[in-house]
Amino acid sequence: MFAPLQNDTFIRACLRQSTTHTPIWLMRQAGRYLPEYRDTRAKAGSFMGLATNTDYATEVTLQPLERFPLDAAILFSDILTVPDAMGLGLSFAIGEGPKFAKTVRDEAAVNALAVPDMAKLQYVFDAVTSIRKALNGRVPLIGFSGSPWTLACYMVEGGGSSDYRLVKTLMYQRPDLMHRILQINADAVALYLNTQIEAGAQAVMIFDSWGGVLADGAFQSFSMDYTRRVLDQVHTEFEGVRIPRIVFTKGGGMWLDDMGTLPCDVLGMDWTVNLAQARAKLGGTHALQGNLDPNALFAQPEQVAALGRQVLDSFGKPHTGEGCGPTHIFNLGHGINQFTPPENVAALVEAVHSHSKTLRA
Amino acid sequence: MFAPLQNDTFIRACLRQSTTHTPIWLMRQAGRYLPEYRDTRAKAGSFMGLATNTDYATEVTLQPLERFPLDAAILFSDILTVPDAMGLGLSFAIGEGPKFAKTVRDEAAVNALAVPDMAKLQYVFDAVTSIRKALNGRVPLIGFSGSPWTLACYMVEGGGSSDYRLVKTLMYQRPDLMHRILQINADAVALYLNTQIEAGAQAVMIFDSWGGVLADGAFQSFSMDYTRRVLDQVHTEFEGVRIPRIVFTKGGGMWLDDMGTLPCDVLGMDWTVNLAQARAKLGGTHALQGNLDPNALFAQPEQVAALGRQVLDSFGKPHTGEGCGPTHIFNLGHGINQFTPPENVAALVEAVHSHSKTLRA
Repeated sequence: MFAPLQNDTFIRACLRQSTTHTPIWLMRQAGRYLPEYRDTRAKAGSFMGLATNTDYATEVTLQPLERFPLDAAILFSDILTVPDAMGLGLSFAIGEGPKFAKTVRDEAAVNALAVPDMAKLQYVFDAVTSIRKALNGRVPLIGFSGSPWTLACYMVEGGGSSDYRLVKTLMYQRPDLMHRILQINADAVALYLNTQIEAGAQAVMIFDSWGGVLADGAFQSFSMDYTRRVLDQVHTEFEGVRIPRIVFTKGGGMWLDDMGTLPCDVLGMDWTVNLAQARAKLGGTHALQGNLDPNALFAQPEQVAALGRQVLDSFGKPHTGEGCGPTHIFNLGHGINQFTPPENVAALVEAVHSHSKTLRA
Repeated sequence: MFAPLQNDTFIRACLRQSTTHTPIWLMRQAGRYLPEYRDTRAKAGSFMGLATNTDYATEVTLQPLERFPLDAAILFSDILTVPDAMGLGLSFAIGEGPKFAKTVRDEAAVNALAVPDMAKLQYVFDAVTSIRKALNGRVPLIGFSGSPWTLACYMVEGGGSSDYRLVKTLMYQRPDLMHRILQINADAVALYLNTQIEAGAQAVMIFDSWGGVLADGAFQSFSMDYTRRVLDQVHTEFEGVRIPRIVFTKGGGMWLDDMGTLPCDVLGMDWTVNLAQARAKLGGTHALQGNLDPNALFAQPEQVAALGRQVLDSFGKPHTGEGCGPTHIFNLGHGINQFTPPENVAALVEAVHSHSKTLRA
């Protein structure tokens, strides 16, 4: 059904196998910093209009690959599609973050939650298949979802939050209700990721964007345990091919020892993490993904290149030769900023590819 | 000039000396969650009207002590008084954070910066002396400032920020200019804290509220090194009495090993830090302050008490007997939220005092 994969650098690095260079892709690489994205978005009328239209979603997913020799593509979608399919009513007002029409703040609302019918998310699976075909084996396609905890944050708050007061009030006052939300979310996310894999996703990533706002102890029981519940159900291979699973917890650098027990292939980290220390902790079990500060892309191109090389040097020489060993997937420590000059992305990708070859010599 | 100190629990714990209970105070304990604070603020007309009026500043500083048996008072002021005195024009619009009329984003603006004349901050020192007198030895008075990096964030951004794009653009593009800002800030903060000590502050705290947004490596050179430059100049004693120095970096838990080299007495930590691990790293050199999630105060009072006891248990039994050893000062991991029910603060203070006595038995 799909063309054979030509550039398997990203998949191999995820599986801790040697590669000739360090693969690079960028969180939100298809996005507002690209003028061609803004054009397509204008045609689509709204963010959800873009995400729910197979042709548009395919078009914008491929746009960054036309500019930069990135080593992976990521489905164009949002982390909040699952609660939208639960009936909460997701929308994006101009210049604002996501909003839900309904929130989940009491026992009645929790009782009304259920794993949604995947038919409601058919537009996502259609986009996955369409993108995979359009990629034609050029690079692998990553599918994704928000983590159970991150989804819960938005479901309770009704949108973004600066202090997470409402979701934490529910968590501290009614941990029983929070655990029920998280169980449903975990089972829904697992089914959602599996269906993405069946539709053509060659790797999947769980974005725990708000795990880092939790207290020590609460992170383990309200976020990580439910990420684990997702991983316990998600395909590790499909049709005989290994499907790498990536977990990214923004602000989770403090809990790398705990996260080292997660049954995934790759751990993503933000820019506050020292990659050499993380490699010492995790290099024997997980590939590492990250972790340039997205704001580093606002320096001059030659400075951007130097900052990219610093991240590679911080990880050090990756595994070479047979078998498995410590590997690194270059990325930002968070999504790319909408004001990023595209030429700085070009400088970064070039520097990562060339310097990472030197590192292996 | 001032009455002798009656409750020295906080000072002793800062100096890693044994106490009969774990002292507790709360960041922003004088603030909007108290109806009596809101009354005084309404009379003052504005936040700066409140902070610059000696009587009002004294009144609100003492308000939480009337309600709760807290073990320290903290000067009512703002972390941004120093850049205001540099001529940047600080204001607080209703329902918004701080704003500066002028920003520092280019070489000309940096060249115009200088350590301000402390006469412009006389209102702060007058408040310190007035509060110290009004306390009449009941508990010690803590003075404070923002850290050089945290001040720089506001000076460049012109206010709060969700992504720190402007300050980081300057840092990555023109590290030379950023270092000049930070040197001036550090020398200004040191002079400011020394003058607070001379006016009556019995301990001082440096709030590095935004150190945690920096990348590993950048934190050490753009935040921590300048906190150290402050500490190198700030009084360790005054008129023969030791003045404890506290450093709090929100989001700095990843860098505890580095911060263990800072020449201060106490390190504050946010709620993401595991206190047992932090104690293992730092208990031999620094007292620890923190670290309950401020949102835990939205649980029911008996749950709040249990969550407070958990934090105490996480630190474990503090040093008892002669000499120095590991000690803990209970606090939140960040400022108290304006919607916090005051009765939950009462439950927390009671639980911390009673359970911490039990822990020593």
